[in-house]
Amino acid sequence: ATPFQAREHQHIRYNPLQDEWVLVSAHRMKRPWQGQVEPSLLKAVPRHDPHNPLCPGATRANGEVNPHYDSTFLFDNDFPALQPDAPNPGPSDHPLFQAEAARGVCKVLCFHPWSDVTLPLMSVPEIRAVVDVWASVTEELGAQYPWVQIFENKGAMMGCSNPHPHCQVWASSFLPDIAQREERSQRAYQSQHGEPLLMEYGRQELLRKERLVLTSEHWLVLVPFWAVWPFQTLLLPRRHVRRLPELTPAERDDLAFIMKKLLTKYDNLFETSFPYTMGWHGAPMGSEAEANWDHWQLHAHYYPPLLRSSTVRKFMVGYEMLAQAQRDLTPEQAAERLRALPEVHYSLGPK
Amino acid sequence: ATPFQAREHQHIRYNPLQDEWVLVSAHRMKRPWQGQVEPSLLKAVPRHDPHNPLCPGATRANGEVNPHYDSTFLFDNDFPALQPDAPNPGPSDHPLFQAEAARGVCKVLCFHPWSDVTLPLMSVPEIRAVVDVWASVTEELGAQYPWVQIFENKGAMMGCSNPHPHCQVWASSFLPDIAQREERSQRAYQSQHGEPLLMEYGRQELLRKERLVLTSEHWLVLVPFWAVWPFQTLLLPRRHVRRLPELTPAERDDLAFIMKKLLTKYDNLFETSFPYTMGWHGAPMGSEAEANWDHWQLHAHYYPPLLRSSTVRKFMVGYEMLAQAQRDLTPEQAAERLRALPEVHYSLGPK
Ligand SMILES: O=P(O)(O)O[C@H]1O[C@H](CO)[C@@H](O)[C@H](O)[C@H]1O
Ligand SMILES: O=P(O)(O)O[C@H]1O[C@H](CO)[C@@H](O)[C@H](O)[C@H]1O
Repeated sequence: ATPFQAREHQHIRYNPLQDEWVLVSAHRMKRPWQGQVEPSLLKAVPRHDPHNPLCPGATRANGEVNPHYDSTFLFDNDFPALQPDAPNPGPSDHPLFQAEAARGVCKVLCFHPWSDVTLPLMSVPEIRAVVDVWASVTEELGAQYPWVQIFENKGAMMGCSNPHPHCQVWASSFLPDIAQREERSQRAYQSQHGEPLLMEYGRQELLRKERLVLTSEHWLVLVPFWAVWPFQTLLLPRRHVRRLPELTPAERDDLAFIMKKLLTKYDNLFETSFPYTMGWHGAPMGSEAEANWDHWQLHAHYYPPLLRSSTVRKFMVGYEMLAQAQRDLTPEQAAERLRALPEVHYSLGPK
Repeated sequence: ATPFQAREHQHIRYNPLQDEWVLVSAHRMKRPWQGQVEPSLLKAVPRHDPHNPLCPGATRANGEVNPHYDSTFLFDNDFPALQPDAPNPGPSDHPLFQAEAARGVCKVLCFHPWSDVTLPLMSVPEIRAVVDVWASVTEELGAQYPWVQIFENKGAMMGCSNPHPHCQVWASSFLPDIAQREERSQRAYQSQHGEPLLMEYGRQELLRKERLVLTSEHWLVLVPFWAVWPFQTLLLPRRHVRRLPELTPAERDDLAFIMKKLLTKYDNLFETSFPYTMGWHGAPMGSEAEANWDHWQLHAHYYPPLLRSSTVRKFMVGYEMLAQAQRDLTPEQAAERLRALPEVHYSLGPK
């Protein structure tokens, strides 16, 4: 019988964090691509556009004028999906028709006063300023809401509707679906094995090495064993940290540093401003913040869609939407490619 | 206090079939859209292209020549994600690193010899021929595999790489993730309530009416209470039917008829060839086909991405990928719009 080789033979892998399976069929990369090609993204963005509502000094949809900020700028989303005062839908009259109240707050965080930069092109101290706001906004909104979701949609391909470097923060009165899954998995793992799932996972990946992308004094970046997106990564602190506000100054500096390296590698992969969705997951907060959440380990997920080039993405459709996620190269192949990339941004190198 | 109104006030809803929650924030439709606009799809497709591997008489990647078929045509995918003979990855050495064998078969089904038609533009007898192949291929592959996933990716926006009208069939040695969820939910509902979840759900929607889109003698189409995609629908038989092969001739004719109506409405919504992913879910088969699967009710899911026009889609990114699905209009609003649309295709009407 042929010996099993992950890069030749399809198989399924389990995601113990989100309790899901993925089909890995690496030989699919051999098929030619005749489908949709994304518009090329080389359109130049002006450094300052007085009509862009995220720019310093611009007027927003609600008539407010932005300050002439020179670092980060945090403000309330003018079109929030979550508002603090929505009424309760009332009790459900049937088990198949369940609705519940949803309250919350949506904020926007501009990373930098300039529209023509992205995180990998910002300096480490500038990125560190973003990390500090992530920590403080988590603390502030977490005083009232059990879940504070920080996320960045980067690139038009990821539904980002404004090129100015920014992320969003949506805090909710409920634990969202994926948070609930991670809560269940991490709680069960801790009670069975006596330590946090992601602490053991990080340790194992440091030993196994084949999925590591970057390591630093305080952080790890790896392509998870169960990655769904072609170049998906997981960013983990080495120390047991439950939430962003707990990070020490040294850990924050080091985070800015490793993020710059990771995002530079991403841009270098296809020599483009690499699109992705990223976001932070940490222990729930709100009124139960003081409960025991030691089974949680802080982490960030990066979900980038590109597969073959700056214009050919992975489509999660059809089989993926109806049956199971499926990937076309192994996580180990993806990690190997990311590891090999330079840590200097392609746009800054010699021509 | 303000009385709750679903179309004004955000809330969360539960999907009892797939055990998931969705955030409904209908007021979000008020926000202007400045993000990515999809390329317009009006490119004419030639009726016959000898270089298109799905056309009658064309040569495929493996050198085989297609017959000059004049109805449907079913063949093995030349770049299958699932192959019948992949070796087993062997036992896992750690609970966080679980991999299992995956075996299967991938087929392609051409709906029609012409490349320039789609299901809503085909005649009812032509669609009925497709239904018959869906039933027979389920029976054939279900003799060996526990799950036979029939799915159609329609439109370049949905990753479809060939404009010729076709769907795919992926049969697997394992129950995919979403099949497992539907299995758990339907089994639990039956054991608690003594009847199939989707039988009771269909009956309730017939009484409540506000989410119905189409009804016929044997079928229902509705926007589910927990829909995630803007104009998502669920297609259900009225009778308790576990799998496609069980459909009677009258039910098959009626299915062809209601599909033509639904897909015509979809095309009419934004006067475009409406992109979507659709697929069938029925009771598992394979070696356990004879077990008791009475908790299953056959159904098809339609997941179309368009939100505002033929070129502005809903992006499931950021919050959706990291926290929870979110929709921008209520399922009731979507159903009302679909109900109001004509059942004659816009391209055939008077100019
Ligand atoms: O097989 P195709 O049509 O080339 O590929 C399409 O459908 C597959 C199954 O849903 C997906 O995995 C691919 O990402 C998509 O592009
Ligand atoms: O708020 P934005 O950036 O306009 O909108 C974007 O992010 C949201 C949150 O992930 C998504 O719901 C939208 O579909 C997407 O276009």
